[in-house]
Amino acid sequence: MLILGLDPSLSCTGWGVVRSEGSRLIHIANGQIATSAKAPMAQRLAALQQGLAQVIADYQPDRAAAEEIFVNKNPQSTLKLAQARGAVLAACGTARLDVTEHAARLVKKAIVGTGAADKVQVQAMLRVLLPGAVIAGADAADALAVAIADAHLTRGV
Amino acid sequence: MLILGLDPSLSCTGWGVVRSEGSRLIHIANGQIATSAKAPMAQRLAALQQGLAQVIADYQPDRAAAEEIFVNKNPQSTLKLAQARGAVLAACGTARLDVTEHAARLVKKAIVGTGAADKVQVQAMLRVLLPGAVIAGADAADALAVAIADAHLTRGV
Repeated sequence: MLILGLDPSLSCTGWGVVRSEGSRLIHIANGQIATSAKAPMAQRLAALQQGLAQVIADYQPDRAAAEEIFVNKNPQSTLKLAQARGAVLAACGTARLDVTEHAARLVKKAIVGTGAADKVQVQAMLRVLLPGAVIAGADAADALAVAIADAHLTRGV
Repeated sequence: MLILGLDPSLSCTGWGVVRSEGSRLIHIANGQIATSAKAPMAQRLAALQQGLAQVIADYQPDRAAAEEIFVNKNPQSTLKLAQARGAVLAACGTARLDVTEHAARLVKKAIVGTGAADKVQVQAMLRVLLPGAVIAGADAADALAVAIADAHLTRGV
């Protein structure tokens, strides 16, 4: 089972692909799709959508997963985030790929064992869980964490 | 100048195309893209994105416009709206179409003369401004209003 984890954001969307074989996890690839803050919004969203479509075409994942979003303290940044997510999920939908949503707390718990883990702990555990993987950046790390959590959480279903 | 007005929403996205020639406005087409509440989110967003891409391919607009969004009283519906908007704007961006955003108040003012106009007043003025146009529904009407407002507002620039 090939799982695509997603960490959508307007400025930089992270993605990560892992293979789940029974209780084994194998890192396949990860990356980040950055957009220029100077470009018009529609162009930035199109770049995210096209970038993700290319990732899906390249790796042909069986399923996808992302963290749930919620309205945070900054409404304007929430709107940007949700729009970016819409463009990214549309790319998945076009490829007939369903996207499972997991609560951020459950993702951390699946990786580190506690829902209150910080980013540093999550990234340290990624190095243990995916030895040798070269991670493109913080957004790609978050995306890999979602993919791994999805493997754990759906295994338990 | 062919202007595409957009009223994005997850359940039903309205669109309307008008031709602006000097001070004349000519209705070209309008419609609504509905998605099933039973379909997975990614599929619904893909349907909006593909529907809009088809409209753009059919009418080849020169520019596009939508109302600004803001976080309203219901955060969950705002997130759905913003995701739908992201998929719709990505379709515009892919077609190299920029999307101008106008405040809802300015759209109403451009159509009815007051920013406090209600939907009924806006729809009555649409019948005056675009005589003979058959309007697909309330979302298409809102989209046509944005297109007309964009014609007025950019003429004044």
